[in-house]
Amino acid sequence: MTRTRFQLGMDELKQKLLVMGGLAEQAVDRAVEGYRRRDVKLCNAVFETESAINRAEREIDELALDLLAMQQPMAVDLRFITACMKINADLERVGDQAVNIAERAIELIGLPQAELPIDIPRMAATVAGMVRRALEAFIAGNPDLAEAVLKMDDIVDRMDDEVYIALVERMHESPEITRQALDVLLISRNLERVADHATNIAEDVIFWVRGADVRHGGDHFKSFSAD
Amino acid sequence: MTRTRFQLGMDELKQKLLVMGGLAEQAVDRAVEGYRRRDVKLCNAVFETESAINRAEREIDELALDLLAMQQPMAVDLRFITACMKINADLERVGDQAVNIAERAIELIGLPQAELPIDIPRMAATVAGMVRRALEAFIAGNPDLAEAVLKMDDIVDRMDDEVYIALVERMHESPEITRQALDVLLISRNLERVADHATNIAEDVIFWVRGADVRHGGDHFKSFSAD
Repeated sequence: MTRTRFQLGMDELKQKLLVMGGLAEQAVDRAVEGYRRRDVKLCNAVFETESAINRAEREIDELALDLLAMQQPMAVDLRFITACMKINADLERVGDQAVNIAERAIELIGLPQAELPIDIPRMAATVAGMVRRALEAFIAGNPDLAEAVLKMDDIVDRMDDEVYIALVERMHESPEITRQALDVLLISRNLERVADHATNIAEDVIFWVRGADVRHGGDHFKSFSAD
Repeated sequence: MTRTRFQLGMDELKQKLLVMGGLAEQAVDRAVEGYRRRDVKLCNAVFETESAINRAEREIDELALDLLAMQQPMAVDLRFITACMKINADLERVGDQAVNIAERAIELIGLPQAELPIDIPRMAATVAGMVRRALEAFIAGNPDLAEAVLKMDDIVDRMDDEVYIALVERMHESPEITRQALDVLLISRNLERVADHATNIAEDVIFWVRGADVRHGGDHFKSFSAD
């Protein structure tokens, strides 16, 4: 059976979105590595990745619109194409967060180094894992994997809260490192936002596959509160 | 000429999205008023508004998918329907930000009152103006109005930067009000995110009306840098 033009377009859309996901992961990875190694060059490389992300976003949106216009898609295809457009927007905003982290890291590199009891790379690893799993769930059309991402979001929120409490304490003790502590706080907040985007992607996958909207008050939220 | 079922559905979609926009504005307004008046009851009312927003989001998405499935829409209608889905997602996240602000405000109300040189209500008024104008641009299909929103985003970013600088200074002087200062910083950051969502909506309006993607590196960005 030969594949129709529509089916080929759907495959291309999926492929392009995966490349986009790879770029978004790269952007966050570069920003966090730039922070960890205090490497301005690596931080600057994030801005290049972001340009590539912005170009990819436009191409994906145009392709999705072309596919919607090409024929009257079936319900499941409709859900898939519109999910792609939403995931696309989320990945672009992951890129924006990476830029914010890189900007904060560059500022930090220009300040005296301060010992802070915060493990940003560990938090970043958890967040990157969420993005990767959300994309895997999308490729595999696997809602169970997507639900695992939703659970990880709670862990990241807790990490972000811990960062906040630890930094308030440090600023109390040592007001002279307030700026450094605030920069780290905002990096933590940016990572938390990346986790939110991963959560959005996971929800879009579940919506696409199950055809039921689980975003607010769905059954899995009930099972969460029973944990 | 009688309107077709498709056209009636399109009208309904627009109406529902406007109601959604009103709810999102209400949520932010209640959160900021709750902060200003130190009124926990008003802060709690934000959570109710958010529930209404979440219900509205689901209905709008389902209606948009129904319309996409109903017939083979023309390119301009496709762009309109997919723009509605994106605007819908942004408005829902405005509601999330309002919840964050309300949570911070409730925390602040539980702490000793601190004099801080920050005018959150003024910033909130600018941000609310952006959301309102972005929705007006959408109703009117007016890309010029949408471009005005993009310019306002720079103003809000500048306000957020000023808040940051002013609070770092205050925390330096008076470490005992660090927690209050941080809460206000995060409220400012939440408002800045609401402004980002208004910007996203404005960009979607421009994309829908002009059919050209101006999101990254479009002509109006060039005219910005000449300002």
